[in-house]
Amino acid sequence: MRRPMSESTMKTINVEYAIIGAGTSGLGAYSKISRKTDSLLMIQDGPYGTTCARVGCMPSKLLITASDYAHHLTTSDFFGVTAAGHVDGHKVFERLRRERDERFVANNLRYVDKIPPHHKLEGRARFIGPGHLRVGESVEVKAEKFILACGSRPAVSEVFEPVMDRVLTSDTVFELNDLPHSIAVIGMGVIALELGQALHRLGVETTIYGRSGKINALTHPDMQQEALDILSSELDIYPTGQVVSTWEDAEGAWIEFEQSNGRRVTKVFDRILVATGRTSNVDRLGMEHTGAEFTEAGKVVFDPQTMLCSDTPIFIAGDAAEYLPVWHEAFDEGRIAADNALNYPDPVPVDRRPPLMVFFTDPQIAIIGQSFRELQGLEIIIGELPFASPRHVVWNKVEGRIQVYLDARTGVILGAELLGYQAEHLAHLLALAITHSMTAEQVLMMPVYHPSAEELLRDVLIDAREKRRIYAAEAMMHSNTVPAYS
Amino acid sequence: MRRPMSESTMKTINVEYAIIGAGTSGLGAYSKISRKTDSLLMIQDGPYGTTCARVGCMPSKLLITASDYAHHLTTSDFFGVTAAGHVDGHKVFERLRRERDERFVANNLRYVDKIPPHHKLEGRARFIGPGHLRVGESVEVKAEKFILACGSRPAVSEVFEPVMDRVLTSDTVFELNDLPHSIAVIGMGVIALELGQALHRLGVETTIYGRSGKINALTHPDMQQEALDILSSELDIYPTGQVVSTWEDAEGAWIEFEQSNGRRVTKVFDRILVATGRTSNVDRLGMEHTGAEFTEAGKVVFDPQTMLCSDTPIFIAGDAAEYLPVWHEAFDEGRIAADNALNYPDPVPVDRRPPLMVFFTDPQIAIIGQSFRELQGLEIIIGELPFASPRHVVWNKVEGRIQVYLDARTGVILGAELLGYQAEHLAHLLALAITHSMTAEQVLMMPVYHPSAEELLRDVLIDAREKRRIYAAEAMMHSNTVPAYS
Repeated sequence: MRRPMSESTMKTINVEYAIIGAGTSGLGAYSKISRKTDSLLMIQDGPYGTTCARVGCMPSKLLITASDYAHHLTTSDFFGVTAAGHVDGHKVFERLRRERDERFVANNLRYVDKIPPHHKLEGRARFIGPGHLRVGESVEVKAEKFILACGSRPAVSEVFEPVMDRVLTSDTVFELNDLPHSIAVIGMGVIALELGQALHRLGVETTIYGRSGKINALTHPDMQQEALDILSSELDIYPTGQVVSTWEDAEGAWIEFEQSNGRRVTKVFDRILVATGRTSNVDRLGMEHTGAEFTEAGKVVFDPQTMLCSDTPIFIAGDAAEYLPVWHEAFDEGRIAADNALNYPDPVPVDRRPPLMVFFTDPQIAIIGQSFRELQGLEIIIGELPFASPRHVVWNKVEGRIQVYLDARTGVILGAELLGYQAEHLAHLLALAITHSMTAEQVLMMPVYHPSAEELLRDVLIDAREKRRIYAAEAMMHSNTVPAYS
Repeated sequence: MRRPMSESTMKTINVEYAIIGAGTSGLGAYSKISRKTDSLLMIQDGPYGTTCARVGCMPSKLLITASDYAHHLTTSDFFGVTAAGHVDGHKVFERLRRERDERFVANNLRYVDKIPPHHKLEGRARFIGPGHLRVGESVEVKAEKFILACGSRPAVSEVFEPVMDRVLTSDTVFELNDLPHSIAVIGMGVIALELGQALHRLGVETTIYGRSGKINALTHPDMQQEALDILSSELDIYPTGQVVSTWEDAEGAWIEFEQSNGRRVTKVFDRILVATGRTSNVDRLGMEHTGAEFTEAGKVVFDPQTMLCSDTPIFIAGDAAEYLPVWHEAFDEGRIAADNALNYPDPVPVDRRPPLMVFFTDPQIAIIGQSFRELQGLEIIIGELPFASPRHVVWNKVEGRIQVYLDARTGVILGAELLGYQAEHLAHLLALAITHSMTAEQVLMMPVYHPSAEELLRDVLIDAREKRRIYAAEAMMHSNTVPAYS
């Protein structure tokens, strides 16, 4: 029997700054604060290495690249190149882990290794009072300012309890030694669609189970529908409903899914990939002991321009904040949190960058700036075209659509939703334009090479410009013929 | 025996505007002028359809896409996808011509078909006096303003006379019915490198013969060398020397090439692709009868901001001008020429877009804004990185380099040279920045997704910014320690 630790064996560390988590945002915060003071401690629970490098962006892109090559074999014939081949699942995962560990995770670890030992502490942190942490069982940390960069974990519904030994999440899927014969993918978010399509293209019998019926990365109903139509033409998708029960037998893991029309479908799989979102690890930190303010949903209230949690000297950053859970935002937030912790109690609000999200599916899904939904109520002009420039025709990749939203009054580009082959590049071009509040006219001053995917962006901006001209002419006519009321 | 045409059978057409050539720039000019007047004539020599659609951008990109698929078969294994296959040369060309003719050329022809017959004339035009053209043998055209949009033709040296029936140019290579067994590619410009690499990847034994030893699309010596090194690691290239003789026998066409060190190499080929540049067709127009001014090299003098030829009411546009022989410039020039013809005799100078050039090789070569060579004598900061962001690592495409040139004083981005996988997208992002005279700092305000190729651009701008800081600090130190002379 384990006895309670006596007071005398408890070690207490006093520092000015405590950073909880050594992922992308925690390391970003560390790099800023360590330049100013030696009085800081970074506390890590579990192995070092960022979510991005270990289980996120990098291994997923490595898997997708392998799936691209498998897919080429099926599309090659059209171009006059007869191709055949097979996927060696063992080799796919072996290479994925080798590249991941030797390049991306190794980079993380090299950085962590250079951090002096007295700046690092390993163990799970939990607040036991304001400014007061317990870490593991034998250490307490007292600090003046805290940065919560403790990341998130995959959310797995209790309905999967009976089949847990066949359940994978993004935390475990990349540890497979071979491709499963079949897989159920639960969710229609970025992880579900990227990995579901990649596994399908690598030869795994894949079924995707959605919930809302919508691909919510996009917000315009036409874009959502077109994305679903295109992906459904390749993948086996049940977009709407819920998993009502699961069980396991010798055949595998069974899923009973109730569709929105009440009909139930039952299927058996080797594996189940649950990709229904991630939950912040902040709920495990004992935040109730800090005096922090909570939303009705139990989330810590913070200001995204300073990352400061209300009524505390605590800052939050990265996936822990659940604000914009993508790498470049985690990186920014770590730095914003650090700058403002250094400046505490006088935080300086920072203008966040325009939001940018990319799904590395085929076709890709991307959204930049303000979404169609966010622009409801504003007078906007929608430039819109199929994703089919001459270059896309050359590639035989002409599925999808682009919508660009202009402020009707000024012509400034406010946002865009994209669904198309390699949409990421057009999204970045728009990102630069939106960052600097450019008009369509200003972007159209740039040279655009022929034939390039960027011609599509040019053409959709021309479309928006023409529509805005008509809009302006009609507004003018309206103002000429209707008596003014003011 | 054909008798000379009598005066009485000669038909004379009087119009205000004559456009010579119905390619990209000619059609662009036509679309502008035809909106303002009915008094115009577009004269076309040979079949309709632009250089771009028939023998340029589009068929070359179609061939390159096929070669990409052939290449995938050789790189697939690395990713765990074992692949094999073969290239069906007949099918490659059949598909190339089908797509080209049914999509791109057909688009041209549909546009031309809609032009009213009295605006079109077919035949070769030649000036017989100022304002006075002979077209073919039986028509004369008198016009007040002219637009020369007569394009260019491949230049073929006389050394190839003995093997002309085995010589191909970009005008004829896409008419092949199958892949040759072997080909000599003469030149190291865009056509030579794009088609040479594509044919090699499709299985043709390919040898490329350069002249200057340099890939002149790039101007920084390190970039030129790295491009040559990378391409030479895949392709059989003799970069420096000249073809001294050719002859044909039962084995094929022989080429004797004298290298810069004086050594001669002799090889035999099925085919020879001469891609040593193109010559403007203006030399066939009888410009000596127009009063136009000529350079020492015999080229017509014109102002690239108005496209007006000195001392004439003649404008020039597109490949005929030999200014920037790429599609988007031809398109612009047709419109600039048309606007200024409409405004004659008061042409309005137009600011040209920053120059942009892309080679669709692998890795791609791109240049945007001012080249390193053009910036000689200015104080510049060179941001420089290998073309190897995390995304490039994921793709296993890490060859090449990017250089970005900043004005040392202001930090404004002046130009860039790129050599890397899909460099075209970074070149376009820089194109927008350069068009609006942005600083590195301004571009760095945009969001950049992880992992994306655009991270490379971010990182090279950070590199440039840091170097500029050091430069500024040193300049400051210098000014503090050295007595001022003024």
